[in-house]
Amino acid sequence: MKLLYPNSIDIDVKSLEGFNVSLHQYDIKADIPEEHTDAEILVTWTNPVPQLKVEAKRLKNLRWIQSLAAGPNDVLSAGFDTSKVIICTGSGLHDHTVAEHTLGLLLNAARRFFEMRDYQLQGKWPAHLGGAQPDRPKGKFTTLQDANILVWGFGNIAKQLAPWLTALGANVKGLARRSGVRQGTEVYSEDKLSELLPTTDALVMILPGDESTKNALNAERLKLLPNHAWIVNVGRGTSIDDQALVSALEKGEIGGAALDVFVTEPLPEDSPYWKTPNTIVSPHAAGGRPQNPETLIAYNLRRFLAGQELKNVI
Amino acid sequence: MKLLYPNSIDIDVKSLEGFNVSLHQYDIKADIPEEHTDAEILVTWTNPVPQLKVEAKRLKNLRWIQSLAAGPNDVLSAGFDTSKVIICTGSGLHDHTVAEHTLGLLLNAARRFFEMRDYQLQGKWPAHLGGAQPDRPKGKFTTLQDANILVWGFGNIAKQLAPWLTALGANVKGLARRSGVRQGTEVYSEDKLSELLPTTDALVMILPGDESTKNALNAERLKLLPNHAWIVNVGRGTSIDDQALVSALEKGEIGGAALDVFVTEPLPEDSPYWKTPNTIVSPHAAGGRPQNPETLIAYNLRRFLAGQELKNVI
Repeated sequence: MKLLYPNSIDIDVKSLEGFNVSLHQYDIKADIPEEHTDAEILVTWTNPVPQLKVEAKRLKNLRWIQSLAAGPNDVLSAGFDTSKVIICTGSGLHDHTVAEHTLGLLLNAARRFFEMRDYQLQGKWPAHLGGAQPDRPKGKFTTLQDANILVWGFGNIAKQLAPWLTALGANVKGLARRSGVRQGTEVYSEDKLSELLPTTDALVMILPGDESTKNALNAERLKLLPNHAWIVNVGRGTSIDDQALVSALEKGEIGGAALDVFVTEPLPEDSPYWKTPNTIVSPHAAGGRPQNPETLIAYNLRRFLAGQELKNVI
Repeated sequence: MKLLYPNSIDIDVKSLEGFNVSLHQYDIKADIPEEHTDAEILVTWTNPVPQLKVEAKRLKNLRWIQSLAAGPNDVLSAGFDTSKVIICTGSGLHDHTVAEHTLGLLLNAARRFFEMRDYQLQGKWPAHLGGAQPDRPKGKFTTLQDANILVWGFGNIAKQLAPWLTALGANVKGLARRSGVRQGTEVYSEDKLSELLPTTDALVMILPGDESTKNALNAERLKLLPNHAWIVNVGRGTSIDDQALVSALEKGEIGGAALDVFVTEPLPEDSPYWKTPNTIVSPHAAGGRPQNPETLIAYNLRRFLAGQELKNVI
């Protein structure tokens, strides 16, 4: 049995030894050497899709791909034969990093660090943002304390994030396909969305990028949010109807948007988001650093060899 | 007995009723009406110092000033006769708000939201800040996770902040006049500063603005910090030797500085801080919104009337 692991991340190979599997590093940007095209297992991280497409035809014995990315989009688009190849995501490897970035974006929005920066670059003191301020004024998003935060898409990342928000004094609710209490947070089923939006101060979107979530935040739903509400998107760009959000931002029908993901990345030069009011453009920086990938690979490798069900199968 | 409360904040007077004291609102920017200059108790909030100086001479029966500010500097500089007048600060009313802002500044620094903003304003995608990134690289401050954060000045604000930082995965240590464990955080005495600085990734300063803290962070101590370490100051501007910090920032001898307080506020136009590298200028925005001041006033009022020791006496 042969496992190929990528040169795009520092993998502690020692923690994968002890199995009856030979381990070989490969260059994600080059053809996998001919003698390794018989590999059964491929670990991927930031592999260029064109090269992956080449390998999809060459790796004829492939049975399992372990991606380290949170979403399977790249691997799926490469055209591997999913009737023969099990595809597993790196879900769980990005929880802490994405949750931290999300918290940062929420505080950036509430405390208006982006606006302070604009003033700083002009050498001006933004007196209106400092000094004596009203405490938790109604109809404004100025703090996480007592803020109603709705987390749409309640997987591992949300489970990491929600307790932090709660500790900071926020009222956190979740929204997911299935309702229930998770990590102490009440998670509602998605049919409750329209009821929850009107009292939401910040909507955190952590939705995957598939057909079911396309334009999930559309004009109709944006209208249900209060005028001061912020959108924070760290899921996938496709889950927002950009035209509707741009319009809401321009008309001041929404408090603002902190966006880490976009339909097209890098964000094109002609995108309106660069200049819409109260918009924070973050360059897909929330995750991008899988943590302890060896633990997931080793866990799934043992199960794969034992013929058991793998974790994170898409 | 007469208590005067300021018109600069919305005080819920009902929660102060029931004492044998008459309550009167006054305008902080005008002379207190002649008929109220016999007041024994004065509550202050954002009172202009020149007007306070006037009142220091007029309020001849004054026995107690309850400031709602975290620091007593304004009231002290007005020249009240402290042999006759007890001065109490609003310490404790700003814990949550200042701690939240501090957390926001730390995340702004680690996640480099300020730099992302610079790119956004130019319509450019900061590719180096997004996509695949090293996880917790040594010699960089990129996340609170596993970061060594030293909180210098360990009062109520630090007690609020430290558990949040710990929840986010930071290794938090405190530094104060007296050592001990507070809110689960190990607090060292100030003579340990030189030992702690070399392993500090972010130094959070929450020192009061008196003579003992003047230029507490000087050139010598800055040199003990690693080159990647950030300074976050939400205490008082006087606790930093500006010339030394500006020099360290310009030479890249320090990771950066997120400053909410300055020796002179608003920050003068010719201050180097507007343009020093990796500097975040926040307009004294951390606090400025006393929370539940009625609770402190009522508590101290009852004790004052009973002849007991007050809370927050300077």
